[in-house]
Amino acid sequence: MDRSSVRKLLESVKEGQTGLDAAVEVLARAPIEALVHTALDAHRAVRTGVPEVIYGAGKSADQVIDIVQALRARGQDALATRLDAEKGARVANVLRERGHADVAWHPNCGVLVVREGAREGVGRIGVVSAGTSDRAVAEEAAVVAEALGNTVVQVDDVGIAGVHRVLGRLDELRSCRVLVVVAGMDGALPGLVAGLVRAPVIAVPTSVGYGASFGGIAALLTMLNACAPGVSVVNIDNGFGAAYQASLINQGGTPS
Amino acid sequence: MDRSSVRKLLESVKEGQTGLDAAVEVLARAPIEALVHTALDAHRAVRTGVPEVIYGAGKSADQVIDIVQALRARGQDALATRLDAEKGARVANVLRERGHADVAWHPNCGVLVVREGAREGVGRIGVVSAGTSDRAVAEEAAVVAEALGNTVVQVDDVGIAGVHRVLGRLDELRSCRVLVVVAGMDGALPGLVAGLVRAPVIAVPTSVGYGASFGGIAALLTMLNACAPGVSVVNIDNGFGAAYQASLINQGGTPS
Amino acid sequence: MDRSSVRKLLESVKEGQTGLDAAVEVLARAPIEALVHTALDAHRAVRTGVPEVIYGAGKSADQVIDIVQALRARGQDALATRLDAEKGARVANVLRERGHADVAWHPNCGVLVVREGAREGVGRIGVVSAGTSDRAVAEEAAVVAEALGNTVVQVDDVGIAGVHRVLGRLDELRSCRVLVVVAGMDGALPGLVAGLVRAPVIAVPTSVGYGASFGGIAALLTMLNACAPGVSVVNIDNGFGAAYQASLINQGGTPS
Amino acid sequence: MDRSSVRKLLESVKEGQTGLDAAVEVLARAPIEALVHTALDAHRAVRTGVPEVIYGAGKSADQVIDIVQALRARGQDALATRLDAEKGARVANVLRERGHADVAWHPNCGVLVVREGAREGVGRIGVVSAGTSDRAVAEEAAVVAEALGNTVVQVDDVGIAGVHRVLGRLDELRSCRVLVVVAGMDGALPGLVAGLVRAPVIAVPTSVGYGASFGGIAALLTMLNACAPGVSVVNIDNGFGAAYQASLINQGGTPS
Amino acid sequence: MDRSSVRKLLESVKEGQTGLDAAVEVLARAPIEALVHTALDAHRAVRTGVPEVIYGAGKSADQVIDIVQALRARGQDALATRLDAEKGARVANVLRERGHADVAWHPNCGVLVVREGAREGVGRIGVVSAGTSDRAVAEEAAVVAEALGNTVVQVDDVGIAGVHRVLGRLDELRSCRVLVVVAGMDGALPGLVAGLVRAPVIAVPTSVGYGASFGGIAALLTMLNACAPGVSVVNIDNGFGAAYQASLINQGGTPS
Amino acid sequence: MDRSSVRKLLESVKEGQTGLDAAVEVLARAPIEALVHTALDAHRAVRTGVPEVIYGAGKSADQVIDIVQALRARGQDALATRLDAEKGARVANVLRERGHADVAWHPNCGVLVVREGAREGVGRIGVVSAGTSDRAVAEEAAVVAEALGNTVVQVDDVGIAGVHRVLGRLDELRSCRVLVVVAGMDGALPGLVAGLVRAPVIAVPTSVGYGASFGGIAALLTMLNACAPGVSVVNIDNGFGAAYQASLINQGGTPS
Amino acid sequence: MDRSSVRKLLESVKEGQTGLDAAVEVLARAPIEALVHTALDAHRAVRTGVPEVIYGAGKSADQVIDIVQALRARGQDALATRLDAEKGARVANVLRERGHADVAWHPNCGVLVVREGAREGVGRIGVVSAGTSDRAVAEEAAVVAEALGNTVVQVDDVGIAGVHRVLGRLDELRSCRVLVVVAGMDGALPGLVAGLVRAPVIAVPTSVGYGASFGGIAALLTMLNACAPGVSVVNIDNGFGAAYQASLINQGGTPS
Amino acid sequence: MDRSSVRKLLESVKEGQTGLDAAVEVLARAPIEALVHTALDAHRAVRTGVPEVIYGAGKSADQVIDIVQALRARGQDALATRLDAEKGARVANVLRERGHADVAWHPNCGVLVVREGAREGVGRIGVVSAGTSDRAVAEEAAVVAEALGNTVVQVDDVGIAGVHRVLGRLDELRSCRVLVVVAGMDGALPGLVAGLVRAPVIAVPTSVGYGASFGGIAALLTMLNACAPGVSVVNIDNGFGAAYQASLINQGGTPS
Repeated sequence: MDRSSVRKLLESVKEGQTGLDAAVEVLARAPIEALVHTALDAHRAVRTGVPEVIYGAGKSADQVIDIVQALRARGQDALATRLDAEKGARVANVLRERGHADVAWHPNCGVLVVREGAREGVGRIGVVSAGTSDRAVAEEAAVVAEALGNTVVQVDDVGIAGVHRVLGRLDELRSCRVLVVVAGMDGALPGLVAGLVRAPVIAVPTSVGYGASFGGIAALLTMLNACAPGVSVVNIDNGFGAAYQASLINQGGTPS
Repeated sequence: MDRSSVRKLLESVKEGQTGLDAAVEVLARAPIEALVHTALDAHRAVRTGVPEVIYGAGKSADQVIDIVQALRARGQDALATRLDAEKGARVANVLRERGHADVAWHPNCGVLVVREGAREGVGRIGVVSAGTSDRAVAEEAAVVAEALGNTVVQVDDVGIAGVHRVLGRLDELRSCRVLVVVAGMDGALPGLVAGLVRAPVIAVPTSVGYGASFGGIAALLTMLNACAPGVSVVNIDNGFGAAYQASLINQGGTPS
Repeated sequence: MDRSSVRKLLESVKEGQTGLDAAVEVLARAPIEALVHTALDAHRAVRTGVPEVIYGAGKSADQVIDIVQALRARGQDALATRLDAEKGARVANVLRERGHADVAWHPNCGVLVVREGAREGVGRIGVVSAGTSDRAVAEEAAVVAEALGNTVVQVDDVGIAGVHRVLGRLDELRSCRVLVVVAGMDGALPGLVAGLVRAPVIAVPTSVGYGASFGGIAALLTMLNACAPGVSVVNIDNGFGAAYQASLINQGGTPS
Repeated sequence: MDRSSVRKLLESVKEGQTGLDAAVEVLARAPIEALVHTALDAHRAVRTGVPEVIYGAGKSADQVIDIVQALRARGQDALATRLDAEKGARVANVLRERGHADVAWHPNCGVLVVREGAREGVGRIGVVSAGTSDRAVAEEAAVVAEALGNTVVQVDDVGIAGVHRVLGRLDELRSCRVLVVVAGMDGALPGLVAGLVRAPVIAVPTSVGYGASFGGIAALLTMLNACAPGVSVVNIDNGFGAAYQASLINQGGTPS
Repeated sequence: MDRSSVRKLLESVKEGQTGLDAAVEVLARAPIEALVHTALDAHRAVRTGVPEVIYGAGKSADQVIDIVQALRARGQDALATRLDAEKGARVANVLRERGHADVAWHPNCGVLVVREGAREGVGRIGVVSAGTSDRAVAEEAAVVAEALGNTVVQVDDVGIAGVHRVLGRLDELRSCRVLVVVAGMDGALPGLVAGLVRAPVIAVPTSVGYGASFGGIAALLTMLNACAPGVSVVNIDNGFGAAYQASLINQGGTPS
Repeated sequence: MDRSSVRKLLESVKEGQTGLDAAVEVLARAPIEALVHTALDAHRAVRTGVPEVIYGAGKSADQVIDIVQALRARGQDALATRLDAEKGARVANVLRERGHADVAWHPNCGVLVVREGAREGVGRIGVVSAGTSDRAVAEEAAVVAEALGNTVVQVDDVGIAGVHRVLGRLDELRSCRVLVVVAGMDGALPGLVAGLVRAPVIAVPTSVGYGASFGGIAALLTMLNACAPGVSVVNIDNGFGAAYQASLINQGGTPS
Repeated sequence: MDRSSVRKLLESVKEGQTGLDAAVEVLARAPIEALVHTALDAHRAVRTGVPEVIYGAGKSADQVIDIVQALRARGQDALATRLDAEKGARVANVLRERGHADVAWHPNCGVLVVREGAREGVGRIGVVSAGTSDRAVAEEAAVVAEALGNTVVQVDDVGIAGVHRVLGRLDELRSCRVLVVVAGMDGALPGLVAGLVRAPVIAVPTSVGYGASFGGIAALLTMLNACAPGVSVVNIDNGFGAAYQASLINQGGTPS
Repeated sequence: MDRSSVRKLLESVKEGQTGLDAAVEVLARAPIEALVHTALDAHRAVRTGVPEVIYGAGKSADQVIDIVQALRARGQDALATRLDAEKGARVANVLRERGHADVAWHPNCGVLVVREGAREGVGRIGVVSAGTSDRAVAEEAAVVAEALGNTVVQVDDVGIAGVHRVLGRLDELRSCRVLVVVAGMDGALPGLVAGLVRAPVIAVPTSVGYGASFGGIAALLTMLNACAPGVSVVNIDNGFGAAYQASLINQGGTPS
């Protein structure tokens, strides 16, 4: 029951066409089906300009294409994650053939961005990774953060085994309003970085490693136990989630 | 915003004291704060007669006493779980001193029931336990099931190590509409029982055991993997939850 | 030793052809081999009309076809679960070629139903799922529930990340006598639903997710720890088990 | 080697008292022992006004008192966490006896704050808790957040078992720049809240629960797998860490 | 329904006092309640001389005393396990005061044996332990094995860190028909011993250790993965179970 | 240093060719290199007739063929386990082509037996399995037990979901001197069987199942926690190990 | 900022071209970007002769070739680990075609070594393995240890199931300065060896095994709980890491 | 059978008192009981000067006193670990009363050292700890390392949250031949240190922490996954084991 329906009901009450009790009944029953929906969903409208996110893992190429086109038809940007190489390439090709101008397909991290025109990023989100094998997750974070309208500063290969590397890039790290720090194996980098900056650190454990890394559990636990305060953690390999959280923080000038 | 407030608003609209737009605005903002609350909470009213449940673990004796008295003042029955021996005894004594007539304190399972007058149970819920050490949890289930208005059939010490024992009580088991089956250590009893009856089985793993019983995990896993269909499982030692679920099933003659 | 054999023995005793001691001996030895069997298996007869269930995972297509045909020859319906795409299609084709009329093959959830004639479902079982990726398990539950003779109400994509979606379908949820609620990742939906209805909720964790979802363990634990009472849980991805339990509850008018 | 030492060395070089090679040698060896120290620690100076944090768990009352007094002597505020009831009371009494004016001891959450004068909080951090048993951790978060100079909005007892409760307080939740959401048992609240607001959610699992809650692991996993984006997680019972992170976010107007 | 009842029924049929149909009905219903019971329990009679086992953990001293006296009144020996120091001493004292002659209380392993007269053990069961801290469990195994009528050979402190110790006692080990091998920490002893003897090895992991011994899990896993064949494993600290199994093997000359 | 070398040394001492000190030195150094070897390996000689076991998993077909032929050349039987379908078939074919008479290849359980002439089994080992999917492991146990010279009684499909099935075969179970009981999923069968027989039960958990069966961990834990005494457990899917242990028990008439 | 830059700055100060304050400022800012880097990286220079290690797992053949050539161009040796069969063969072939003389490709353990000329190893590192299936990891350790300039003594197939085997090779074991001991399944070998030698033992668990070996966790735990002192442990299957550690120990004559 | 017994036997052979066959028989049987013992234990003699280690956890004060006195009577030093405060103080007092001169009792880490006269340590072992709460374990390592005859360099409170602290002490770290690095919570310090030095690092995880530190598992996993090579790990809280291993490395100039 949207506002115009409510208005019509009130007019009808005012004009005596609907009795008071009947109108009360309608309104009492309405909230669940309609008003609630409206009220709860309303805060989404404020997010205009933020692309809608499509979780690509369980969908076919055709399904992704359809959703993207529907979004574009409404003038909305689209961001699809977790597309494998073949599916992503196919989606990108078809969309380009059908005339979509700004299709960016990132095969290393399986992210596809479709939007209209260039957009200037705001703030600065640092995306930091420990080793070369963590780069796919870091790239997912970076691509998503940019697609959500942020400026991204990327700092790679600064694992703690060679601490001079991360110290050598302190200026870049300290220039950011929030940092996404990605690490597998021992997962120690976020705690080290948090001790060096004032910005909040969103830590992303990766499934990189073998044996007792247990597919990222070791890194996850390290991050949850980081000695330096200022670290919070997302799921293993969840570059998208970290970037989304970082974007909320970076752009969070005003409450919703 | 309850029904009378809505009615007043509509009258005001009808009488021209409130404009249409203003009224739409009020109603659009209201749902979250009031109507939703009303709508969502409404189904609780249907449950009249069901005692309110107090989780006693994190509360002081005085807090429990206060809540019970408040409930009784509204004419509502009270059921408190997970009270330790000392706290429960104190609550029971104080309530009796203050003139509450029907205070039943079950020290073995830490449950306290305060209600008005006797009540005839309906249906039949079987509460079955494997060993003597599982009895505290079984008793929690039985006391709660009775307090919720069900007739309870108790079958104890029918562990699978002596299968003739459970076979010897098949008639009782088969007379029930739903069974709560409680077992620690190997947790095998619910699967055995489910193969012998047509009623649904709610399985309760207990933390009884040592070593590789891991505080009930072994029993929990056994139950989740029960070969016989017709078994669902609640948390370790959660006699209350099983009884509550069994009561919903036993009394579930009509949808909410 | 069935009833007619026992009767014959008694006649023989009565007519003096068998001595008392010999007859006692026969009866004392009989139970394990025969009477027990009869007694224990008797309750299965009551279940006439319920299809026999074939666990298809470890069987060849030919084995499944043979079992189905044997069941059909006895006039019994058949329900096979966990058939992969190729095996299920082959079984369905062969059965149709051999003249079986009512063969329903559900490739998304790997369930095959073979029965005679249409059948009206009774009661209402709600099958609720959180996300699109949980649908295969939800479909298994729905197909099985229908095959077991229940009316099914399906409610999809009502995950807790958008709580207005589940609130918008409260009427459907509340119309059911029992709910099967399917969710992966955080597994939070069953606890939310249980707080909104009076019917028992059978929760099914799914293996959907990545990283710290640990193949469904995260969802399983969430459900076992659901704050709302009225939730019991089955094994990860066990749509069949949940539907079977729900059917027992839905049809549980009379004890076995 | 601080700046004045470097200056002296340079003067000595300029005046010819120290040779070039000797000076190079001194400077090359110096960084590790001194310059590095200075450079890395410099960013702490910016944090003037933020109280120094004392992890009270492994320290005696006397040790805590000494550290607090040393900090106060430098004009710095002090914040001690994880003090048990007895130790905290003793520390508070002694400090008051010795004339420290503004000693706030919070026995429920074991936090002690010693600072000079009142201070106006900035921004708005929401601290939300699911059940009464989660309140100690929520209080730790709230006290710490305030001590770090933030305005705190507290929203208690809004667990998902009664979803109308959290919906009834949406306005408060939406008024905050960042939310700390505390929950034990099923840990589902942060994911629900994140779907209702635009602010980042810092989730805190608590060790509240029994059986398969595994001391907070169930809640931790639920939060890491939250379906709604915008959730990051800290260690079990780590109210302090969540508040610290939230404070960085709330006050993060400018990069370090 | 025991044999004499069946005989009476048959007489009654023979004499025409009971009709055939009525008798069939009685017999058909009887098995579950009586005949089954008899048949299944019959094999226990063969075990005359074996003491009845009382699991003492969840019982009061008075309960244990009552059970022991009831068993002794029937002329049966009694064996109680997992009694703590105080409870066991009290039970032993009371039983001695009441004139029970042969009361053996083993405070180190919490086992109490009450039997009549001395008994010669048969066969040879070896009970081997790795370190001094494993001795309580080894003693439980040894005391139980003796109480069950076996000769016990005890070999202590032969951990693998000094392999010469176990090699120095090979003759004793090889003189046994079955070995119970008890070890905590790395749990490596059973696998070593199994490579040195021809007898079956029953391995008992103990909860001795710290850190990554995880209360005996490390030892349990080691034993399940023993490279030498001829090792089977019981629960952590389950000296009783190992001795019982070893006794079945040692005395297993003839099938039941 | 074998006995003849020692004898030669002694002769040399006796004849004065070797001094006492030199001989002492030789003997003192010898043990590790030779005598120990001899002494420790001696007990293997007693096992004549027992086939040598080849763990086939990490070996090529050619390697297995070579080892088998070497064993046969010495007149020894060979038993290879964990060969996959292709490798096993190839080994069997080549061996047959090369004239080995008695080559038995069991593709379902990956076991190959090569021996000379028929051999009468001794004793009776029961191999019991719960469901059809556990049969591969049960077959491994049965084939190995027979190859080791035992008579095997096989009892299949007697899972606890239909307890009448196992009760119907009690006579067979009770005729055995030791039982190998194989079960996946809930793993409850061994505990049930142990309560029905007097023979020791060697329990084998299988990796059959899904979800919370965790590849056999659930069944393993159930078995370790079996309420009935007389159960010991081997590694998941380790049919070979159980058969080997059962064979030691079955044939264990005399100590080594 | 290297030494020559610092020298130039000092000259400039001396000659009055740069003011004291400006120079202090430059030096104060420099450390992080340059001096630190220099200081921290300096100790690498000492390691001349040690090949640079390339973690091959996440790199393409071409990337590995490029890195190797770059290293060789600088006159440095190269060591690549975790190359699969195809990638390693390709890298080796290309490098040989391009004229690299000393290319050693070890397909069993995936290690490639490229160096100039033969080199005499120092000290003695023992590499001991329990079973044939552990040999790949042992070979990785041996090849790496040799490439790092050590003499390697290899002792294979000395698992504890036949303890005479390891005793028979004591002299070799005792001739080494440090031992790398590799074992899967029960992982008991390192503890046994540590009790027999005076050298430190670096234990390497392998993922060899099935069922409750949990991919090497069982062996890892055994080693962490080894009863004999003198054992430390590296990650599962980490032959490289053990060899590297052993090399540091073997060559550790002088502090860095 | 010691050397003198062997000598006597040979004399007896030489003199014709013992026949050759009888002597061969004696020697063939002897090795296991005696010669092996001698041979295997011989290498212990080399360790003269190293104190014997008493694991104090499961022993009474009197037992510890007796063992110490027996050792001292043989002129051997004694080292007892894991004594609690009361037991250790009592042991120390009694020993001092009985005139033992050099009794050092370390109550913080539960270690007692009794030796004769002062001894100069050799080499340099660094003992590094991350936080104040890790100090007990670090002290255990330091006290043990000194008691074993090494010079110890202690570096405390250099956790990675303030990386300048560890950098400020590089010279000390680099002066050591081997480092024991102790850390709880995130356990990241050993990996950081290993990247800064050339000496081998023995990492000790501690049980310090809460929540997802899981009693030291998080730190243990971090260390096993350390990105820097040159790290091996001992059990949680095993300061003794790390010191013992470090001592073997530090003093390992010559093979055993």
